[in-house]
This record gives sequence, C-alpha cells and structure tokens, in this order.
Amino acid sequence: MDDSAQPETRSQSRRPTIVIIGGGFAGLAAAGTLASKAVDVTIIDRRNHHLFQPLLYQVATAALEPSTIAMPIRRLFRKAKHVEVILDEVVSIDLPRNLVIARNGEVPYDYLVVAAGATHSYFGHDQWEEAAPGLKTIEDAVTIRQRVLVAFEAAEREPDPQIKREWMTFVVIGGGPTGVELAGAIAEIGNRVIERDFRRTGRTRVILIEAGPRLLPTMSEKSSENALRQLKKLGAEVMLGSAVTAVDDNTVSCGAAQIRTRTAIWAAGVAANPLGRALGAPLDRAGRVQVNSDLSVPGARNVFVVGDLAALSCQGKPVPGVAPAAIQEGRHAARNILRAIDSKPGDPFRYFDKGSLATIGKGAAVADIGRLHLSGMIAWLAWAGIHIVYLLGGRNRFLTLTEWAWMYFRNDRGARLITGDVEALYERGTQPHPKH
Amino acid sequence: MDDSAQPETRSQSRRPTIVIIGGGFAGLAAAGTLASKAVDVTIIDRRNHHLFQPLLYQVATAALEPSTIAMPIRRLFRKAKHVEVILDEVVSIDLPRNLVIARNGEVPYDYLVVAAGATHSYFGHDQWEEAAPGLKTIEDAVTIRQRVLVAFEAAEREPDPQIKREWMTFVVIGGGPTGVELAGAIAEIGNRVIERDFRRTGRTRVILIEAGPRLLPTMSEKSSENALRQLKKLGAEVMLGSAVTAVDDNTVSCGAAQIRTRTAIWAAGVAANPLGRALGAPLDRAGRVQVNSDLSVPGARNVFVVGDLAALSCQGKPVPGVAPAAIQEGRHAARNILRAIDSKPGDPFRYFDKGSLATIGKGAAVADIGRLHLSGMIAWLAWAGIHIVYLLGGRNRFLTLTEWAWMYFRNDRGARLITGDVEALYERGTQPHPKH
Repeated sequence: MDDSAQPETRSQSRRPTIVIIGGGFAGLAAAGTLASKAVDVTIIDRRNHHLFQPLLYQVATAALEPSTIAMPIRRLFRKAKHVEVILDEVVSIDLPRNLVIARNGEVPYDYLVVAAGATHSYFGHDQWEEAAPGLKTIEDAVTIRQRVLVAFEAAEREPDPQIKREWMTFVVIGGGPTGVELAGAIAEIGNRVIERDFRRTGRTRVILIEAGPRLLPTMSEKSSENALRQLKKLGAEVMLGSAVTAVDDNTVSCGAAQIRTRTAIWAAGVAANPLGRALGAPLDRAGRVQVNSDLSVPGARNVFVVGDLAALSCQGKPVPGVAPAAIQEGRHAARNILRAIDSKPGDPFRYFDKGSLATIGKGAAVADIGRLHLSGMIAWLAWAGIHIVYLLGGRNRFLTLTEWAWMYFRNDRGARLITGDVEALYERGTQPHPKH
Repeated sequence: MDDSAQPETRSQSRRPTIVIIGGGFAGLAAAGTLASKAVDVTIIDRRNHHLFQPLLYQVATAALEPSTIAMPIRRLFRKAKHVEVILDEVVSIDLPRNLVIARNGEVPYDYLVVAAGATHSYFGHDQWEEAAPGLKTIEDAVTIRQRVLVAFEAAEREPDPQIKREWMTFVVIGGGPTGVELAGAIAEIGNRVIERDFRRTGRTRVILIEAGPRLLPTMSEKSSENALRQLKKLGAEVMLGSAVTAVDDNTVSCGAAQIRTRTAIWAAGVAANPLGRALGAPLDRAGRVQVNSDLSVPGARNVFVVGDLAALSCQGKPVPGVAPAAIQEGRHAARNILRAIDSKPGDPFRYFDKGSLATIGKGAAVADIGRLHLSGMIAWLAWAGIHIVYLLGGRNRFLTLTEWAWMYFRNDRGARLITGDVEALYERGTQPHPKH
C-alpha cells in the first residue's frame, strides 16, 4: 500500500539525450526513427495524443468521434523502452544551456527537435475568432460540431423566418483543403440528414469564400475546377476573389457584400507556433523558422526544426505544410542527429512530393499525382485508402472504415452529439442581434 | 436563396397534444407507444440525444466514446410524422393553464408526461462535488475520464513519491452498480493498460467506499459477496460500513480514517429533478413525486410522472430506479393516456421485475434473475448481451461490440483521449496542498 513509488530509473549512461517538442506527424516521425537507436528520446507534448489532422474536419462535421483520429502518444512507444513521453507545455527554450523550459520543469537535451506546428491566423483580426472559430485541435472540432448541430436545432424552433434563414446559412472562410472539405460536408448534412430528421428548418445554405482566384490554390488548376464543380453539385455556393473584411456573430462581410449567418468557420490562415521565436533564428512572415538545408537552426547546430514550424525551399519551391512533408522532415532531422552523433555532417533535406488530395463529399474528391489529375469516385477512393493507411492503430482504422461505410450506405452521420452548454450556444447567436 | 423559410405546418386538427418532458428511457417508451396513434406528440429535452445511462461508466473509464451510447432523439422519430422534438430546457409547469414553460417559449398540452429523471445528491454537502464529481451526463463522464487519465500522467512526471501515490490512488464513493462498475474498470486500467504504457507511475490503488454493510444493496446477498470477491481479485480495496464524512481535493475522510487521493468519484446518492416540485403533489425524501397507482399526479389527472422522478410501490415493494422500470412506466402512462382519450379510467401500474445485473470487469459480473444468482463469465456474457440488445441503433451496437472485442482481446481501451484544459486539471489537484 505504501511502497508503490518506484525509484527513478533514468538511465545514467552516456547515451545522447534527444528531446522532441510536439507529437504531430513530424515529431512522431523523428521519434520513430530514433526509437531503436542508441539514444534516449523524450517527447514533450501538451496533449496526451497524436492527432490525425487530415480527418479533423470529419469530427467537426459529426462523421467521426475524436478518439478515432487520436492516439495516445505513449501507447505508440509502449515497446520502445528508451522513449519517454511527458505531458507538459513548453514555454521556452534556453539554447545556451541546452534546456527546454516547460511549465512543470526543465528538460536537458543534447539534441533538440522542435516540431511544435502551427495554429490558425486571423491576419491581425483576432476578434473574429469568437464568431468564426478555426480548426486545429480536437476542442476546435467539437466546438464547430456543436455550433453546426445547434444551428439546425435553433432553426427548427425559430418562428421568425429571417432568423431561421440565418441559422440555416453556413459560411466557410478559406478555400484550401480544409475549407473545401468543411463546405462539402456541411452541404451533405443539409441535403441528406437534416431534411429527414427535422420538420421545418427550411433549406441549408452553404457559402465558401476564397480570397484568391481559385479553390485549392496549392493543387492543379484542373483539380480546382473539378472541386468547384463537385461542390456546386452538392448545392454549396462558392465566392472566389472575395476577401473577408469583417466577421461578427450575425454577419460575414466581403466589402459591400454582407452575408447574414449564425455559423461561420475560419479555414483561411496559418501561423506558426510562437515557440519559433525562442530560437533566435530568422522567421518568415507566417512566423516559421527559416532553417538550414539540413533542417538545423542557424546558430544552433544541435537544434532542428521540422513540420509546419519550419520554412525551407527545396529545388526552388517552398516545401508545403502537409503531413507527408512533415513526416519526411522528421525522419530526416533524426537521421542528421544520428550523423552528428557519429561526427558526420548533416545531409540536405529533399522533399519528395507524393501528390495531393482533397475530398468534397461522398464519392467526390480531387487528386493530383504527378501529372495525373483525378476527380470524382476514383479520387475519393484514393483519398479514403490513403487516409486509412496513414491513420495510426488498427482500432482507429477499423472504426473509421465502419463509420465511413455507415455514412456511405445509410447517408447518416454517427457522431451527432451536442454536449456542453447548449443554451449558451443559442444565445451566442441571439444576443447581439440589432434588427430583431 | 431567400425563399428557404417554410410555412409553419403545425397540424390544426383536433388531435390531442401530448407533451413529454425528457428523452430518457421513460420518455422514449411513452413516445414510442404514442407515435403511431391519433395524437400529436412533442418531446422536450435540454439535450439533443437519448443517453444509454447503463454504459455511461464505460465512457468515464475510456472504453467507449460518448456518441456510441447516445442517439439523437429526433433520429429515433424520423419516420413518426406526428412526433416533434424540441431542444429546450423546461423551467416550470403551469398546471391550471396546461402549459409547459420552457426557456424559449411555452408549450400547451392536453396530456403531459413528466420524465425528467434524477441527478446525483451529495446529501447536503454540495461542496464535495468539485472534488468528487458524479456520473449522470456525458459531460460528467468526460470530466471523470479526463481526471483519471490526467492522474496517471501526473503520477508519471511527479518526482515526490508521496504525491505520486496520491495521484495513483482512486476513491469511488458508493457501492451501488455504478460504484462497483467504476471501481472495477479503474482497477483494470491500472492492472492492464498503465503498466505497459507508463514507466514510473507505481502501482494503481482503487478504494471503493460503501456506507452500508454490503455492495449492491438492491441485489441478492449472494451477488453482493460475489461482487466483493471479484473486485478484490482485480486488486480493488473495498471499505464497507464506512460513511464518508468529508471530501476535498486531496483527501476523502471516513470519520478518523483519511485517504489521500487526487481522484475521487461520487456514485452514492440520487436526487430527483427539481421539476417535481412544480406539480404540487407530495414528494418523497429524494424529491420524487408520489404518483397515483395509474402513474398520474394527485390533483392533476392529465399529468403523469414516470421514470426516476416517480415514487410508487408495487405489491408492497418500491419500484427501483432502473431502466426496465422506467420503460415499463413510460409505456404504461402512454396507454393510460390513450384510455383517458377514450374516456376510460386508468389501469394501475404493475412492475415486472426481469432481474438485475452489475458488471465488475472483463469476464466478471453478477446477475440475479428470479431465484437464480449468476456470477463470473456467464453473468458477464448475460450482461453484455442484454446491454447490446437494449442499446439504440445498429451503428451504436456494432461500435460497442467492436470496442468490447478490442478491449477483451487486446486488454486496451480505445477512448484514452484527454481534452480540455489539461494544466487546470493538474493544478486542481496541486493547488490546495498544505503539506508539500
């Protein structure tokens, strides 16, 4: 009863200690490469789970439950006895002393991998966040899911037709993959689920706003056109070349055009984790660390930055902030650390572009693979297959396949659960309402 | 674009309107009985989902995800065109005017079924709730799950052996089915999951405290003994005849005995929904409405109370607050309403006791079925089968079976996801800590 404490068993050998900040794609890839080597690895994350971000929008649209796309980090390294996981938040990095400063203690390192990722950026309009939340964490996804589901409930019970229309109007800001996926999924819910379960909500209206001239700007023009066509087929409206100039609880404005809505979602900007500033290296406009070609930090050769926090170009093109790039960078930094331990110089990083995909709805997606541009069902099957393969854990794969099969054949969504303070969500839309 | 509002299509016929407050077992049973009859039914609930409470402890112990044991109420009545669902919170009932007063409007009724259920009671010590949350809602379950998972994380990173032991000590207060199930599940997590994924937490200690002389007081003495034996086999400690006298963030006290713990869970008392007071009828000590034998309210023959909010005896024995009783009462009240519409007197309610079950862990449960007392694997299989059958929806049944199979064969738990403000959870246990 009283002898359950175990002595500290930290290895006192001369194995180099590598600390990895962040358990996303880049951090896990680095840890995985180092796990079987003669080094001690410590992963620090403020969450206990790795999050499979490419499917986060499915949590936000009531298709998947959070735990299906998350995996406890320490379970991934259950069998790796020299990998340790600490649940803590890093607040700073002390480069001269080789120390990571976390909220609950300091962690010394010989080599450091910073894979702290990015969050959404409101381009200097942080006050828009309350009305138009972004999508980066499980909590964000649950917030958006609640708002979308409550909007339908509120429309159902609202007698005023004008307010009812506002509840039934959904605005997604940003036409990248996340925005396209969100707009398509909400349009599908409106078309397929809502009209069966509700009695008098009226029609669902989904508007996707993109500041640039086309959707999915990082993909081919062909895929942009295909995505636009498939979105319109689902009933979504797309506004291209429209920069949002104001957002509040009832209105999204693009210059003179005003859209009355009670549910706006932000999928537009990305800002790097502010931890990048602690490294004393030059940052790009989005706050990302401009790393050396071997992914190390200028002025700190034992510190590497990988994933969305790193800015670098490869063969003249910037490496995109996508999961495959993060994984390749994480592995590369780990290999360069092993080279450094062996007193070898670091190799330059080369990005291998495997192609890119975005999904719009059931049987609707676009894919660029080399010079190949796929669209429709074949792209959707490619998308589904790749995401199942990359999802971590047999349980998660199986549950995701089950939910997708359910959605596909029953046209229904499993995770339609509103939790938290429902009345507060109603009132959020109702309080500052000048015209009614 | 601007004609999406539909006209109000509420039936103006002379069909009687029946309002049901609450979408739990009792309310759904009443609605289901009435759905195909010549009546208009309105279900009001402050949640959009029916919750399968018997499996709520599995959400609290990271075995199932919330949406697996919840079902949107309106989906259940998708095909019942005369059943309407309103997401709103009832604040009062105006008996003379036959009106339900909800936060966002008034709902008139010809007949009313009050199935508002119960919550936990701290026997006048509401200040204990912060340190020892109860388990009635999805939010409660997620709170408990977070505290349990964070406790292991905190133990892992805590250098002080005394505090480490406090994090690894879990106290469950109340030896009814929920308390037994929670204690068993936490002991299993400690035995099977934690020692594989953590490096230096030390041993898990689970203590179940019951004020009465035996566990599961509503079951047979044989089952109480079997439950005690199976819990001890899992490594849980059981304190019988021990009334809790104080609870704070670090300590649970039973008179002179003090248990140092950072995670206490309340599974002891039940109090009826305060809405019962609005009915002007006599209440019992737990605040439940003492209904007539036909389940109507004394003095209001068109109002019925069913489920955990109703107090009545049947053949000299009080009807227990369990799901089968709630379902039987809901159906019976619905039938008596149909009789009243036909100007017939109400029939008295008779409770048919199908038996009772409680589960302790993998392959461990107890069951009383008539004079039969089952234990171990056979009781566990009966428990699992019955719960799968009663769970609503093919998707939920399938996902639950999948998760159980995963747990059974892999000894792992799928829903080990910590969300929300993790640091606040640590600090909750750390702040008021006088001795360290």
